[in-house]
Amino acid sequence: VETAEISSNHIRPLGQLHESFIIAADDEGLLLIDQHVAHERILFDKFRRSEGERQIESQNLLLPETLDLTPAQLAAFALVEDELAAIGFGVMRLSGRTIAVKSIPTDLPAAETRNVLAEILDSIDAEKRGGAKTTIRDDIAASLACRAAVKINMKLTPEKMQWLIDRLLLTSSPTTCPHGRPVILRLTMRDIERGFHRS
Amino acid sequence: VETAEISSNHIRPLGQLHESFIIAADDEGLLLIDQHVAHERILFDKFRRSEGERQIESQNLLLPETLDLTPAQLAAFALVEDELAAIGFGVMRLSGRTIAVKSIPTDLPAAETRNVLAEILDSIDAEKRGGAKTTIRDDIAASLACRAAVKINMKLTPEKMQWLIDRLLLTSSPTTCPHGRPVILRLTMRDIERGFHRS
Repeated sequence: VETAEISSNHIRPLGQLHESFIIAADDEGLLLIDQHVAHERILFDKFRRSEGERQIESQNLLLPETLDLTPAQLAAFALVEDELAAIGFGVMRLSGRTIAVKSIPTDLPAAETRNVLAEILDSIDAEKRGGAKTTIRDDIAASLACRAAVKINMKLTPEKMQWLIDRLLLTSSPTTCPHGRPVILRLTMRDIERGFHRS
Repeated sequence: VETAEISSNHIRPLGQLHESFIIAADDEGLLLIDQHVAHERILFDKFRRSEGERQIESQNLLLPETLDLTPAQLAAFALVEDELAAIGFGVMRLSGRTIAVKSIPTDLPAAETRNVLAEILDSIDAEKRGGAKTTIRDDIAASLACRAAVKINMKLTPEKMQWLIDRLLLTSSPTTCPHGRPVILRLTMRDIERGFHRS
């Protein structure tokens, strides 16, 4: 099993393995796609692009979510407030260390709001504060993509599998996720025929 | 990709790769099944068993097929006439070196009649005539199984894929075909998770 190079876009899902991996076929053989990291890659690219293009897709929460931040989180928040707004978070400061989240990026499940914000604010440590803005933006987009992506052990419809494959192929790097893990493994017809002693 | 050990019979076909290999899933991971050799194994076991049990399944041809044999083929025919009858061939000797085939094993497509008989008779060479009857019977059953089995590059319905898998698991040796080639290759969840850096 090798990390895949994508050279064909006629990829057709056959089904899902253990509700975690999409099994697909193209002209060159069999593909295994990690559904979580595939979706992560799609969302990461979308969040980075929408920031650049200032096309914010945001959904209002039915009730604003209030979070009591630690002093470190509050300091981090002051630093990334603009980046959070650019990616689709509508956040208001209340008194003390409390913030109210009124809207979130459309792709993020509402239930993930607290977790992803805590994760983002905790990841802005002293070292990164001195770093480049793009690194911080990448980190925020990666955290958000990870929380918003479909999980493993989740059943997908054939339509959703095809959607994930089609969108994945449009991304900047379909074969690796934002954290560098492989998204697609490939078994070529040559590998398979050799395995069956047909070559 | 490794030759598979079968330890679970909850094998579910996901689809067909290049109309030649069945892609299936079970509790332990992904299976690739060579549709031709899988069917060969099923038919080989059936032919060997039906001989033993004298349960001949034969179909009448609409028109008897006449074959003009070479002297060598005629000599071979005299030697394996009983074995051919036991496996489902209804053959009558006509004058000279001509034979008429009136019925054939049910699993054999009628169009394969001439080819498979020529193949069987040509394979009974001087060396084998001195050999054991069981070797000759195995050779006949293997030739017949090969000709009667679904080919590669042939589209299968999901029902036919499930039928092949279910029958294959009932055979004496589901993982290798009568000629010793692998029938099933397996990718375990461990292999797959390792490939995706998930373990």
